[in-house]
Amino acid sequence: MTGERFERGLKTLTEIDGEAGHRVLDALADVSPALGEAVVSWGFGEIYSRPGLAPRDRQLVTLGMLTALGGCEPQLDVHVNAALNVGLTPAEIVEALLHSAVYCGFPKALNATFTAKKVFGERGLLPVTAE
Amino acid sequence: MTGERFERGLKTLTEIDGEAGHRVLDALADVSPALGEAVVSWGFGEIYSRPGLAPRDRQLVTLGMLTALGGCEPQLDVHVNAALNVGLTPAEIVEALLHSAVYCGFPKALNATFTAKKVFGERGLLPVTAE
Amino acid sequence: MTGERFERGLKTLTEIDGEAGHRVLDALADVSPALGEAVVSWGFGEIYSRPGLAPRDRQLVTLGMLTALGGCEPQLDVHVNAALNVGLTPAEIVEALLHSAVYCGFPKALNATFTAKKVFGERGLLPVTAE
Amino acid sequence: MTGERFERGLKTLTEIDGEAGHRVLDALADVSPALGEAVVSWGFGEIYSRPGLAPRDRQLVTLGMLTALGGCEPQLDVHVNAALNVGLTPAEIVEALLHSAVYCGFPKALNATFTAKKVFGERGLLPVTAE
Amino acid sequence: MTGERFERGLKTLTEIDGEAGHRVLDALADVSPALGEAVVSWGFGEIYSRPGLAPRDRQLVTLGMLTALGGCEPQLDVHVNAALNVGLTPAEIVEALLHSAVYCGFPKALNATFTAKKVFGERGLLPVTAE
Amino acid sequence: MTGERFERGLKTLTEIDGEAGHRVLDALADVSPALGEAVVSWGFGEIYSRPGLAPRDRQLVTLGMLTALGGCEPQLDVHVNAALNVGLTPAEIVEALLHSAVYCGFPKALNATFTAKKVFGERGLLPVTAE
Repeated sequence: MTGERFERGLKTLTEIDGEAGHRVLDALADVSPALGEAVVSWGFGEIYSRPGLAPRDRQLVTLGMLTALGGCEPQLDVHVNAALNVGLTPAEIVEALLHSAVYCGFPKALNATFTAKKVFGERGLLPVTAE
Repeated sequence: MTGERFERGLKTLTEIDGEAGHRVLDALADVSPALGEAVVSWGFGEIYSRPGLAPRDRQLVTLGMLTALGGCEPQLDVHVNAALNVGLTPAEIVEALLHSAVYCGFPKALNATFTAKKVFGERGLLPVTAE
Repeated sequence: MTGERFERGLKTLTEIDGEAGHRVLDALADVSPALGEAVVSWGFGEIYSRPGLAPRDRQLVTLGMLTALGGCEPQLDVHVNAALNVGLTPAEIVEALLHSAVYCGFPKALNATFTAKKVFGERGLLPVTAE
Repeated sequence: MTGERFERGLKTLTEIDGEAGHRVLDALADVSPALGEAVVSWGFGEIYSRPGLAPRDRQLVTLGMLTALGGCEPQLDVHVNAALNVGLTPAEIVEALLHSAVYCGFPKALNATFTAKKVFGERGLLPVTAE
Repeated sequence: MTGERFERGLKTLTEIDGEAGHRVLDALADVSPALGEAVVSWGFGEIYSRPGLAPRDRQLVTLGMLTALGGCEPQLDVHVNAALNVGLTPAEIVEALLHSAVYCGFPKALNATFTAKKVFGERGLLPVTAE
Repeated sequence: MTGERFERGLKTLTEIDGEAGHRVLDALADVSPALGEAVVSWGFGEIYSRPGLAPRDRQLVTLGMLTALGGCEPQLDVHVNAALNVGLTPAEIVEALLHSAVYCGFPKALNATFTAKKVFGERGLLPVTAE
């Protein structure tokens, strides 16, 4: 877990996911450090660090994917935080999840919205108001 | 299939999905016109028409969802076209689908990328070059 | 959240989902009232209110979908209640979920069956006996 | 592939799936006859043969599951035929698939509806008209 | 719940899943004993008992499936235990779940790895060390 | 697309996926060479090259994942070939896919088995016989 790629990945992970990203790495340390290394070095050091898509845009795509996959509430929690960290507003996040009802149906849209509500509550961002 | 909501939805559908959206409506006419009506009046007339998220942002979320759901190649075809129609570049679309490999794995990222390639080919946009 | 369509949807929601539906709306109020509005006005006011399929039949289809999607235990809870409200017996619900093992595999059939068990327990309907 | 359970399963399979079920068994003969045996003896001989849920109700649940799973168009083809064979009307099938948009989103509802359209066309049942 | 097939299935279930399998059967007793019977008689008595694939190989396939399906943490818990019971090491299980990131993406790989960590912790197998 | 990691990945890809892997890379060249690079350098150069799980075991896990994901028939085609290349027999592959019916249901097991049949046919391996 050293080298230029890992360092760049850790820096990007810290900027985007903040503390939550580090908690995931810590939790992996005694069971699968190699998975943590892959998240940092490949996911963040190689893919997230590419200039072709803005951090805000990456989080919009990611919110769509995690909502559609289903069963990824822990990762949605991290990425609703990440979305806020890179400049998406609560109202935009909520609108993206409303939009997801068209493509994924209401159950997945509801699960994702309640995960967002939990994060907004923790960050003192409730109630969400239109801009 | 009349009324203000339907008309607004049809206008938005035409702006975003273009001809492809109309082909879907035509194909539904003799089997489930009510599904076509729901796509237009609710999907486009109510959700897509909301001002809270830019059309370009809606397509980023949509590309993420359709890639993650899997088995939605016909809809991805429509929405890669839609993404181009609302101002995303081929390079940004390709980057979003590369990003999807991190969250959905390579098989779904590959299926989506090859659907995008088909659309790009039809529109004379190959090869895709970094901006 | 007014108008004829919303009122009709709220009436249908109340008949089918009962208190559980209202709890979902209340929980959405400070984060995404628009999602609650969409559930009521479109989901219930437009789709559920159509005469083409009996309420009991709609719940059979819904139980199948929620079991297959996976990760939708909160919605399955609401809809096992809904299924009972519109006349399906516990034995029929359990049989539908056994049937789901053929198409979705045992893990999803088990998750759905244990969600049904929780609802049956809350409503004093255990043990389930064949009719 | 003999015995009372297999015979009962084959009889039920023939009643419900008709020719399409037998084509699946034939196609499995040189690659996985054991999978064909499992479909017949367990799926149909044990589960489908249980009296706790009417054949028509089993197909409603099955249509919901296959729509939600995604990527199961070959099986949806067989089961739209099966649904017609056990007494569901084209209008009820189409209504069930419209209902699925609420829970699974439009892409899966569209894929399923176009599969149903193909079957209806083969059986001279287009256009579908409300009852 | 008697007969040669059920007895053989129960013996195989006990060898592979141990106590966890019996807990599932017990929990089904008052809601869907027929689902428990299907798991034992068909799943274990017919499929698991076939000689064509070693028990260890069956668990590798099963870990891959449960990780990919998503939302099956209770079953993954049972099958990480089963994998250990039939001779897979913690390091091999962790490696299989790292491998799953390539095909299913990081969120599902993480969910599965943390389920494995929970099981390893209960069995005193942490930290996992490379062999 | 150079460097030690890429070279090692290409070597591993060639050993396991053979010609089919190279066809995927060629098809990506004009649309997303970065996705091809990620498959080779990360997927094969980093993950597949790890010694912790035998190539044969990696393919068993992969067959399970691709069957469960659904809609990944092109990738299943590549990996049924890969499974044969690393020493799994047609009978073992067919048995793994029969086993998948228990966890994923019959539709996904059937789709995967018919993909395997296509590959076996192309390689002159039909009919499959028990060992």
